[in-house]
Amino acid sequence: MEILTSAAGLQAYTENIRCNGQRLGLVPTMGALHEGHLQLVRAARESCDTVVATIFVNPTQFNNADDFRLYPRLPEADAGLLAAAGCTALFLPAVEEIYPQPTVLKFDFGALEQVMEGAHRPGHFNGVATVVSKLFHLSRPHRAYFGQKDWQQVAIVRQLVADLSFDLEIVAYPTIREADGLAMSSRNRRLTPEERAIAPQLYQVLQAAARRIRQGMLPAQVEAQALAELQQQPLFNTEYFAVADAHTLQPLAGYTPGRAVVLCLATHLGAVRLIDNVVVEL
Amino acid sequence: MEILTSAAGLQAYTENIRCNGQRLGLVPTMGALHEGHLQLVRAARESCDTVVATIFVNPTQFNNADDFRLYPRLPEADAGLLAAAGCTALFLPAVEEIYPQPTVLKFDFGALEQVMEGAHRPGHFNGVATVVSKLFHLSRPHRAYFGQKDWQQVAIVRQLVADLSFDLEIVAYPTIREADGLAMSSRNRRLTPEERAIAPQLYQVLQAAARRIRQGMLPAQVEAQALAELQQQPLFNTEYFAVADAHTLQPLAGYTPGRAVVLCLATHLGAVRLIDNVVVEL
Repeated sequence: MEILTSAAGLQAYTENIRCNGQRLGLVPTMGALHEGHLQLVRAARESCDTVVATIFVNPTQFNNADDFRLYPRLPEADAGLLAAAGCTALFLPAVEEIYPQPTVLKFDFGALEQVMEGAHRPGHFNGVATVVSKLFHLSRPHRAYFGQKDWQQVAIVRQLVADLSFDLEIVAYPTIREADGLAMSSRNRRLTPEERAIAPQLYQVLQAAARRIRQGMLPAQVEAQALAELQQQPLFNTEYFAVADAHTLQPLAGYTPGRAVVLCLATHLGAVRLIDNVVVEL
Repeated sequence: MEILTSAAGLQAYTENIRCNGQRLGLVPTMGALHEGHLQLVRAARESCDTVVATIFVNPTQFNNADDFRLYPRLPEADAGLLAAAGCTALFLPAVEEIYPQPTVLKFDFGALEQVMEGAHRPGHFNGVATVVSKLFHLSRPHRAYFGQKDWQQVAIVRQLVADLSFDLEIVAYPTIREADGLAMSSRNRRLTPEERAIAPQLYQVLQAAARRIRQGMLPAQVEAQALAELQQQPLFNTEYFAVADAHTLQPLAGYTPGRAVVLCLATHLGAVRLIDNVVVEL
């Protein structure tokens, strides 16, 4: 597996790949890789000739300095995992390589970012859209792979690609979970053993809420009940629990048959902020 | 000269060009071509193997429905001029080809768009940045050529390219003028003979103001004097006359030696809105 650290090096590498008629898959990550990331690499490997993974803890998408500082960084271990999963090249740039000067332009995705993560993490999706645009321009993949644990991020990136006519396809894969149901996340490494033991309750609350949605309970009631359940565990400090249209991400008053519903939550568990979601097809 | 009308056709054409190792120049226009556009095509021809011109009257950058409706459209004549100037391919898409669905995301360029055209044409630069991004993604040029008559547009496009790491170079060429000094513009076709006769006064006012700037008169005074001169001609209905830093576009209180100053104006002349500018190196 080739390791590239310069933007120009990545551009030259991927231009050569494309001009050799090969299909190029991109897996953008922030590192501290887990099975969710590796699933994306293996999926890319199946449908593309070349797979470029990127590891870049993007400062502009963090609205919390501690979260950025404490985000796990394990590049050597990550490189081993990527090579074993069939990754062809790893792009591992320094911050100055991606942001040689401060960024002026800001993206606004309207209603799509005025809920959930967008509402609770000011500037987050502007940082995401900026770095994703840059990585797309530097690597110009045929396909780019994202995990559905960041459901709203996938929606934002799809909108970005459609609105600016990026010449690539977004592929999203379902969340990978630990045996006890906890959604895999790089931030899980920062949980204490006690916190790790109760973290799977988040998925249990989501599953119970999904059952109530399927049974026809109104979204507002489902949300209230889920929030009450989360409050019973004093270590959870919950930011939101939302029942939304899976595509528009807007709150649901009632249901449209045939439209998917997404249930999303964000909660602080000790010093770590966790998110998770489940999708219900009605 | 090849004529392409579909986005997919343009992508395939330009991908092939790049993979043949050729340098690709892009000249985005709204058509009704004049010598200013043709200068860009010839410049592109000199430094690139293939020159793609685009003609697309972009609805999202018009804040005035009449201006969009009445914008001159002369595709056959334009195609002849482009072929004669050495253009290799012309992209002439329908609106639905560029905007298959409504655009959600909005760009905000901060201070750069809060002055001059950005201040007077709400949404204009969002439309410009959107269509330019799309055209860059569809054609992926090595170089893209713009005219300095739209000074602020060039600044916005440069910021877009830098902030999103587009893999291309922006090249800007000076305004081409008629013998009597009027800046060439597709909109000049819409002037009545009487309006056309007085239109060159705009450049005269700009030149006089530039002289005063060089002589050390303060920007506020230069602006006031230029506005007074414009008011003497009752057919001019002036929107702004601005003395600004040529790079940041921000109003100038005083001068920094070595920095360039741009003098910009926008005025309505009958039913037509005209802009012009001159640059002064101090």
